[in-house]
Amino acid sequence: MVIVMRSGASEQEIQEIVDLLHEKGLEAHVSKGEFRTVIGVIGDDELVMQVPFQAYRSVERVIPILKPYKLASREFQEEPTVIKVGDVQIGGGTFTVIAGPCSVESEEQVVESARIAREAGAKLFRGGAFKPRTSPYSFQGLGEEGLRLLARAREETGLPVVTEVLDVRDVELVYRFADVLQVGARNMQNFLMLKELGRQDKPVLLKRGMSATVEEWLMAAEYILKEGNSKVILCERGIKTFETGTRNTLDISAIPAVKGFSHLPVFVDPSHATGIRDLVPPLCLAALAAGADGVMVEMHPRPREALCDGSQSLTPDGFRSMMEEVTRLAEFLGRG
Amino acid sequence: MVIVMRSGASEQEIQEIVDLLHEKGLEAHVSKGEFRTVIGVIGDDELVMQVPFQAYRSVERVIPILKPYKLASREFQEEPTVIKVGDVQIGGGTFTVIAGPCSVESEEQVVESARIAREAGAKLFRGGAFKPRTSPYSFQGLGEEGLRLLARAREETGLPVVTEVLDVRDVELVYRFADVLQVGARNMQNFLMLKELGRQDKPVLLKRGMSATVEEWLMAAEYILKEGNSKVILCERGIKTFETGTRNTLDISAIPAVKGFSHLPVFVDPSHATGIRDLVPPLCLAALAAGADGVMVEMHPRPREALCDGSQSLTPDGFRSMMEEVTRLAEFLGRG
Amino acid sequence: MVIVMRSGASEQEIQEIVDLLHEKGLEAHVSKGEFRTVIGVIGDDELVMQVPFQAYRSVERVIPILKPYKLASREFQEEPTVIKVGDVQIGGGTFTVIAGPCSVESEEQVVESARIAREAGAKLFRGGAFKPRTSPYSFQGLGEEGLRLLARAREETGLPVVTEVLDVRDVELVYRFADVLQVGARNMQNFLMLKELGRQDKPVLLKRGMSATVEEWLMAAEYILKEGNSKVILCERGIKTFETGTRNTLDISAIPAVKGFSHLPVFVDPSHATGIRDLVPPLCLAALAAGADGVMVEMHPRPREALCDGSQSLTPDGFRSMMEEVTRLAEFLGRG
Amino acid sequence: MVIVMRSGASEQEIQEIVDLLHEKGLEAHVSKGEFRTVIGVIGDDELVMQVPFQAYRSVERVIPILKPYKLASREFQEEPTVIKVGDVQIGGGTFTVIAGPCSVESEEQVVESARIAREAGAKLFRGGAFKPRTSPYSFQGLGEEGLRLLARAREETGLPVVTEVLDVRDVELVYRFADVLQVGARNMQNFLMLKELGRQDKPVLLKRGMSATVEEWLMAAEYILKEGNSKVILCERGIKTFETGTRNTLDISAIPAVKGFSHLPVFVDPSHATGIRDLVPPLCLAALAAGADGVMVEMHPRPREALCDGSQSLTPDGFRSMMEEVTRLAEFLGRG
Repeated sequence: MVIVMRSGASEQEIQEIVDLLHEKGLEAHVSKGEFRTVIGVIGDDELVMQVPFQAYRSVERVIPILKPYKLASREFQEEPTVIKVGDVQIGGGTFTVIAGPCSVESEEQVVESARIAREAGAKLFRGGAFKPRTSPYSFQGLGEEGLRLLARAREETGLPVVTEVLDVRDVELVYRFADVLQVGARNMQNFLMLKELGRQDKPVLLKRGMSATVEEWLMAAEYILKEGNSKVILCERGIKTFETGTRNTLDISAIPAVKGFSHLPVFVDPSHATGIRDLVPPLCLAALAAGADGVMVEMHPRPREALCDGSQSLTPDGFRSMMEEVTRLAEFLGRG
Repeated sequence: MVIVMRSGASEQEIQEIVDLLHEKGLEAHVSKGEFRTVIGVIGDDELVMQVPFQAYRSVERVIPILKPYKLASREFQEEPTVIKVGDVQIGGGTFTVIAGPCSVESEEQVVESARIAREAGAKLFRGGAFKPRTSPYSFQGLGEEGLRLLARAREETGLPVVTEVLDVRDVELVYRFADVLQVGARNMQNFLMLKELGRQDKPVLLKRGMSATVEEWLMAAEYILKEGNSKVILCERGIKTFETGTRNTLDISAIPAVKGFSHLPVFVDPSHATGIRDLVPPLCLAALAAGADGVMVEMHPRPREALCDGSQSLTPDGFRSMMEEVTRLAEFLGRG
Repeated sequence: MVIVMRSGASEQEIQEIVDLLHEKGLEAHVSKGEFRTVIGVIGDDELVMQVPFQAYRSVERVIPILKPYKLASREFQEEPTVIKVGDVQIGGGTFTVIAGPCSVESEEQVVESARIAREAGAKLFRGGAFKPRTSPYSFQGLGEEGLRLLARAREETGLPVVTEVLDVRDVELVYRFADVLQVGARNMQNFLMLKELGRQDKPVLLKRGMSATVEEWLMAAEYILKEGNSKVILCERGIKTFETGTRNTLDISAIPAVKGFSHLPVFVDPSHATGIRDLVPPLCLAALAAGADGVMVEMHPRPREALCDGSQSLTPDGFRSMMEEVTRLAEFLGRG
Repeated sequence: MVIVMRSGASEQEIQEIVDLLHEKGLEAHVSKGEFRTVIGVIGDDELVMQVPFQAYRSVERVIPILKPYKLASREFQEEPTVIKVGDVQIGGGTFTVIAGPCSVESEEQVVESARIAREAGAKLFRGGAFKPRTSPYSFQGLGEEGLRLLARAREETGLPVVTEVLDVRDVELVYRFADVLQVGARNMQNFLMLKELGRQDKPVLLKRGMSATVEEWLMAAEYILKEGNSKVILCERGIKTFETGTRNTLDISAIPAVKGFSHLPVFVDPSHATGIRDLVPPLCLAALAAGADGVMVEMHPRPREALCDGSQSLTPDGFRSMMEEVTRLAEFLGRG
């Protein structure tokens, strides 16, 4: 940590901060420049972060030097994390497609979707039983019945199931039916849910909050890791910007950036990122080329009947054609 | 709702949409322009919103005309909502200051804070027992013990207590101790918690999510109102933008904008919006002048010892001096 | 400046950077922590900034400590800058209203506007002769003829004229007619125009770019100041965010923030910030309360006939009523 | 265009708008819903846009239906625009790499850079003679001498030259030396410069403004096209968001989105978008996979000596290795 003293801070004020540091068992390196004095702080980082230096008038700025996450960092673990979901390998050079409808609507719809997904080459099946909807007047999902239908789809196709835990009180319930527990963007900083999921032994797919920095996202992963669950899959799903042509702005740079900082696998959800069906295939290819470990896309057997997000769902034909392109490219890049 | 057909949509495609509308019992008004056909849709709005028009290739855009919230709207209730918390009136022309430390740290700290708050003219006392912290390594609050200390502070000073419900499982617990239940920015779209709070009979202070539009914020209020709790206080606390000089960007325009759309009282939290103590007093005055119903500010008896957000907390002296200015201005504006 | 070395940087790599610093005549203070080495750099700042430290693999981050602007800073000049435009004083405790139509349309319109402005208490008159329009198909302004009409309005009312220089080639032309030369948001980083304006002896009103940080804005002012023109008036006019309810988001915090960093006067333009007429009066009051030195607002004698931005222009009656409120509040705050 | 009347607008107010439309020669289709009346307007679009409907109290919102650009639209020209720069083809299924240093520093540096670029497979050479720098204290470019050196590099290597026009007064000068005239992000809405460039017969590479929507970007292109220059190359270079890990956020979705709306070729500049050298190669691959027509990247023979942006410049080795990957992928995708 580096403490920048205010211009004109007196000798005594500087000494006050140095004394405070020593008192906490920290080491202080003072550099006096022409306009500012800067103090480098060395010592136990958690300790350092708890001292409210900025409550001192003489302190202008406190600049953290270390990344605030540890278990999620490359420095903690150099090797990329590889996660097994049944027979499916996530990370470690593979490229995995998760597909399925936005929400579970009926047994027929969900089983049909899962079949189409499997046949076209998807390795996991997604579907929402609990739906976070901006409006209380919109369809909120089938709930537990939806979970049962997802399990039916798995029975029929063998595809492991990814589904969202919307409420911390449902962790146990969703755990019983799902193979991968999803944290939605709106819950990325629901810290108590993250802790609960950190105590489970199933993988967690952690979506990036729509206004979360990459650092905040990795801190959210840290909450899960810290409780003992090391199976965290990150999923970029678009951030909020001034651009209104797409629902959100897919932050493609986050893929290589996160891979530089962290060992965790990174997925991309282009369906929610854009809200526009036609943009999904090119962005899947881009995600693959940029180094993502997989994508999660929405597909519906009959988008015109979808109860949710019909305009971003691929049709079965659109999905198959995209899967062909993705599969060919993945093979070419040695990511098959 | 207005449906914009894609350029070159055929007669048949237009008819398909019109038929679909009729089938759902909706009325369609077709306007054919030189380049585009536009269909005005009339009928039950909830019904309209559930039809996935955009799943049709022939549809370019669907433009909602009505605001998606109802109970929160001025059209539903012209009169401004006035909420009583004990003897304190929120809204209806008053200007109310809520003050207190970021987090509850000890009985001494919390009681002392409440005394300073009351003496300087604050009408409610705030303090966090459960703290949402970006890092799992930061102080997470005293929990239930914190709630007890808040109740002690109320006993000592008579100030009603505002405190955050961080976890849906704690609604009942917090209800027992608090007078106003706060929803933090990170939980603004925790829809199940909103529903739970909608079933309580105590006021809810609903912070705006840091990437929520005003419309999404009012939709979150709608979740609470729809369950039957009409005592919702909105609180603007800064949104995320590219500006890094302040922690977030206080959206002051949201005050008059929301007051135009909604009957609910609007507060401002300049402490979290900026993260900088010196900006809090001018922004309180600005909030008052812009028509806010109150502010919520952080103050700590000894910011240098604060376990949380020391750099944005006002000192007791700073707080008193701000309160003098705010009180004088409120009186001048007839908002005393 | 502080250089953060990459985790695992070798002794030799650290020495390489230290040697480089010494070679440039700079002093290096090395602090070795458990995970990172940090080097504090002391010496001529301009020199420091020109060394491409980040081109070294061993360097993780370079953190500037000093603000990059000098002449615009409070450290350079403690006293607030006060600017005289004819008899009108800008800054130094006053609150000044600049008003007028978005664009100059006719002699009648401009003279009538100026009369209304003066009678209601505005001290300067604004009007655009050259209009930056997103669409090439929109009205682009009357050009030189518009400048002549502005001069006519000044003749009739005595109000000094503020108008935008849209093209660097027009600096001389606009100089001949205007009293204050305005730089629009889109030109905030038109560095060559800034330099040209820095060589003039008339005040420059510098709008903040819609995606400019406060620091970038002050750097733009620095370009003007560096050429010798010390009469710079800053004008906040809203930044681009994800919020779509208002055209831009007025960054009210920028007022006290800039006043902390700089001696330059700060204005606010709530008309462009919001694009909504009804939000203009409350935001003028808020700007005043937050410490702004003035506001610039759009007003049109007959908004329904405006060739530009009719929906954000105040009517004469709306303007008068706002001026009464503003004047009363300014007097109350001792800013009359 | 669709006009949404305010809730409670009277018959008379609705009629007033209808009459106004008729008066302007426009057709009005009125749809009366339960809560709102909506008026569909048909007629000459430019005419429609000039009527200030929102100046009427009775009008709540005006919603444009048509895209505001014409010449830039797919509807105007279905075929993708293909541009020839000497022997190099831009667009039409090719993938073109433009490479070179941020700024021209010396003959040796520029000629060496151009040789490396050509040998590795770049088709055009870039280099800045006029540099837009946030700080007036930073290196501002060699100016005309820089242009001469770029011409020398072309002589030596045969690579056509892309360089920025920073000032409208330099259009002629830059025209004499450059093969492609670049408009920087800060000048994207310098409308008078766009017009000037619209009168040239050389291609224009138009960078997206850092806070410009895709629609505003296409409107900027429209300014150039409208003057008669049809050789416009769009270049996405990152937009400003709250994410601070990268300098800007590369909007990869803009590639397929723009290709849907427009016939113009789209490039990507990952160097400026991220400011981080290591992110450039994966983002070039992503841009290619997403359908971009090319990329523009920064490369310097010795980044440690670069006078500008050394930290984002690829080294010659890094550049060659990236070019191998890009070339292989382009061939695989049939874009060689």
